[in-house]
Amino acid sequence: MDTQALVSQFKDLQRRLRVYGYAMGVINYDGETAAPRQSAQGRGEAMGALSLISYELFINPEVEALLDALHEQRASLDAQTARELYLMRKEYRQTTCIPKEEYAAAAQLSSEAGSVWRDAREKNDYPMFMPYLQKLADFAARFAGYRKPDVPAYDVMLDEYEEGVTAAYLDDYFATLRRELVPLVHAIGERPQPDTAFLRGTFPADSQRRLARRLMALLQVDAERCALGETAHPFTSSFTKWDTRITTRYEEQDLLSSLYSVIHESGHGLYEMGVDDALQHGPLANGASMGMHESQSRLYENMIGRSRAFQPQLLPILRDIYPDAFGKVTEDALYRAVNQVVPGLIRTEADELTYSMHIMIRFELERALFDGSLKVQDLPAAWNERYKSYLGLTVPNDAQGVLQDIHWSGGAFGYFPSYSIGSAYAAQIYAAMARDIDVEGSIAAGDIGRINTWLGDKIHRHGMMYPPAQLLEMACGQPFDATYYTDYLKNKYTALYGL
Amino acid sequence: MDTQALVSQFKDLQRRLRVYGYAMGVINYDGETAAPRQSAQGRGEAMGALSLISYELFINPEVEALLDALHEQRASLDAQTARELYLMRKEYRQTTCIPKEEYAAAAQLSSEAGSVWRDAREKNDYPMFMPYLQKLADFAARFAGYRKPDVPAYDVMLDEYEEGVTAAYLDDYFATLRRELVPLVHAIGERPQPDTAFLRGTFPADSQRRLARRLMALLQVDAERCALGETAHPFTSSFTKWDTRITTRYEEQDLLSSLYSVIHESGHGLYEMGVDDALQHGPLANGASMGMHESQSRLYENMIGRSRAFQPQLLPILRDIYPDAFGKVTEDALYRAVNQVVPGLIRTEADELTYSMHIMIRFELERALFDGSLKVQDLPAAWNERYKSYLGLTVPNDAQGVLQDIHWSGGAFGYFPSYSIGSAYAAQIYAAMARDIDVEGSIAAGDIGRINTWLGDKIHRHGMMYPPAQLLEMACGQPFDATYYTDYLKNKYTALYGL
Repeated sequence: MDTQALVSQFKDLQRRLRVYGYAMGVINYDGETAAPRQSAQGRGEAMGALSLISYELFINPEVEALLDALHEQRASLDAQTARELYLMRKEYRQTTCIPKEEYAAAAQLSSEAGSVWRDAREKNDYPMFMPYLQKLADFAARFAGYRKPDVPAYDVMLDEYEEGVTAAYLDDYFATLRRELVPLVHAIGERPQPDTAFLRGTFPADSQRRLARRLMALLQVDAERCALGETAHPFTSSFTKWDTRITTRYEEQDLLSSLYSVIHESGHGLYEMGVDDALQHGPLANGASMGMHESQSRLYENMIGRSRAFQPQLLPILRDIYPDAFGKVTEDALYRAVNQVVPGLIRTEADELTYSMHIMIRFELERALFDGSLKVQDLPAAWNERYKSYLGLTVPNDAQGVLQDIHWSGGAFGYFPSYSIGSAYAAQIYAAMARDIDVEGSIAAGDIGRINTWLGDKIHRHGMMYPPAQLLEMACGQPFDATYYTDYLKNKYTALYGL
Repeated sequence: MDTQALVSQFKDLQRRLRVYGYAMGVINYDGETAAPRQSAQGRGEAMGALSLISYELFINPEVEALLDALHEQRASLDAQTARELYLMRKEYRQTTCIPKEEYAAAAQLSSEAGSVWRDAREKNDYPMFMPYLQKLADFAARFAGYRKPDVPAYDVMLDEYEEGVTAAYLDDYFATLRRELVPLVHAIGERPQPDTAFLRGTFPADSQRRLARRLMALLQVDAERCALGETAHPFTSSFTKWDTRITTRYEEQDLLSSLYSVIHESGHGLYEMGVDDALQHGPLANGASMGMHESQSRLYENMIGRSRAFQPQLLPILRDIYPDAFGKVTEDALYRAVNQVVPGLIRTEADELTYSMHIMIRFELERALFDGSLKVQDLPAAWNERYKSYLGLTVPNDAQGVLQDIHWSGGAFGYFPSYSIGSAYAAQIYAAMARDIDVEGSIAAGDIGRINTWLGDKIHRHGMMYPPAQLLEMACGQPFDATYYTDYLKNKYTALYGL
């Protein structure tokens, strides 16, 4: 068959797969936002059936033959089709290289482990979860071996979440963080804290809903293409660039929680909504990687939303909605309050500076677990020791320690580092952007559209066309360099805390 | 193949078809309630692809052979399976008896006609819509001929919405209504109207949201299985008995609009949520017919929600949420206000008494259109003449007359009568229920659960197991009798207006 006919079949397959992705995406979003509580079983059955049909549409001898035939003719493919082929062949291989029984056993295990983890966390009982964690780690290592027998298992896992990233690369990265940031965190611990009294109070959910709309408008998130929902845990879900959903949770005693989650998810949403039209119907329609996605959400949340320049935009909105609470607050006081550094035990509640410390600890432990230098039974002690050393904290129990995150219970090892690397990408991208446009001036003027346009051109429009490291280098004109991140944090927090 | 194996294949087919129904149902609900405006095209593509896959899953030689083989062995099927087979064979025939090109042409036409109708209504230009209406009626008549060549076309259409109903049956029904209700409407026109001043005012959307929740709780609609959404036009959508959605619209100047739409849709929702577990995975999982569904929604809306006995339940809730507006309103005043009769031009805004007059007019016109005694070009004049004669109104233009409803533009002829027949079923069902339990006492005591239980046992649990006429006779112990409805209306409104 000629290349043109093969490509046409290939594009048609992509479109058909997207239909199932769309259906499952909407069903999942509806389940999180709108569905009544008892709907779970029906949704589970439908999702199971749809994912099986979708699996069978992709994993079958005809598709394999099609992918192989296209691979033979890869030299004559355009760049987009070649990238699509690369990613779909990778996914095909990653799915089929694992024996079906083992795949099913792992799925069964991680489903069980999820509820055991929930129980264990509630009862503060690590030994209860430990055998599951051991088996999950064993499965992860074995699957990595099936996928790339000649590559260290943890590198294979890391690559699944952040294409091209290796443990050695992260060793360097986190060494820089450890060297530069741990002393900064300790120094801040000695300094007086800013006044945050005006953030205490009750902020009714309805007023926070209005605030969320104002923030999205300020960030120029197109409401015609992006809806805002409410869920227990905020997330972004994008079906096409014309249909993106972000969610938040309104806690009446905690204004900043929803405020910054809306800005964070808006960053994810703007990324998805900025991918080129031409990529919408295939596997390149989403952000380049977990880390690159986090770079956008954190750039908007921290580097814009928590910048000094943003406060003259934010404060009038807060004063408008909450005249009593914010009538006398100054821009400087607001700036200091939203950037308070308080080392804590819980990752998801961490401030901008200490967040990466939580990730660094998880990376060190995962790395040791998979190179054999750490046993699962020694994990809690290793965890607690690091929280003491890096954050100066005593972990009172495993529920607030090693059992706090859901990720490992789902077999997701190698996922955490992308959270931190995203912040580092963001700092480097911001610096590159600041060479081209007046970023601070744009923020201060409320002209976020100018920033959206620059990021849209350099990052968003490319979707998954390039691996994240290459995309970063294209956008910034140089390879990844963690010192942008540490310099940014040191400058910001040294000034904030008068060090 | 033995019967057991055939039945097992048949049930499996049902389950697979339900998965697509579920997916399309959720996507549609999400589209109406949550999706951003520009999502329409992506949703349209996905819906198109899913309905094609679902169509091909059902309409194919293997399924036809399966249905035929089961039909051969129908004597040995249990009652549920036999009914499922009957309905699925009917659907198979109704789909396949129409030549594919004609089916596609009709779909194309009704899609075009939809936007022409919208334009024509806006411009008050019936001649613009007329050729489309003519072609839609021609298609409907031809399709009816394909479906049942020996049956009058309009009877075939009626049967699609209300199994077993014929034009002759409706001639009798509407003759009773005409004779009994038209004089009543005219007499009420001579009487003074109740005071409704306390219903004028502004009722913020958020307070109406709280009211809606209170009403659902009062009606004992299980919030764990039924969610409440917001849409331009209220509707009920049920995926399973454990996952039902009702919607409403909050108009700040019109408290009763949302109040009674929530009760109305709760009636639909309770019906769907009451169908037997055993019927959930097949074609019998929903209400028996359009008319039987309307009987439940209208029984809750009008016979419960607008009853005198309900006002002691409703008024305290209104006083709690709107102390200023309702502090001094009496139960009697509220009862009279929610039952005000005002003949109007618009069907969707009609009160309980005049509603069926609107339907009667549409039935008479459809009937005449399909027996050849009325031409499409004479429709507006015939419409206006009837509004004058039955409701005493002069129709000022076609936009508020013959162009007001969407139904005909979608080729839905024979649909309207089910709206009215539902009210008549409701009156007869209510009377049967009142022979078994103290309905008024239960309402007055706020014990709606007792009513739900009776209706659940007599109507809801059976789903589509029986044709509506048979179900009604089983529930009431006698065949359909329209005088229950006319007696109920005459008694209620004669007393209300002191006639």
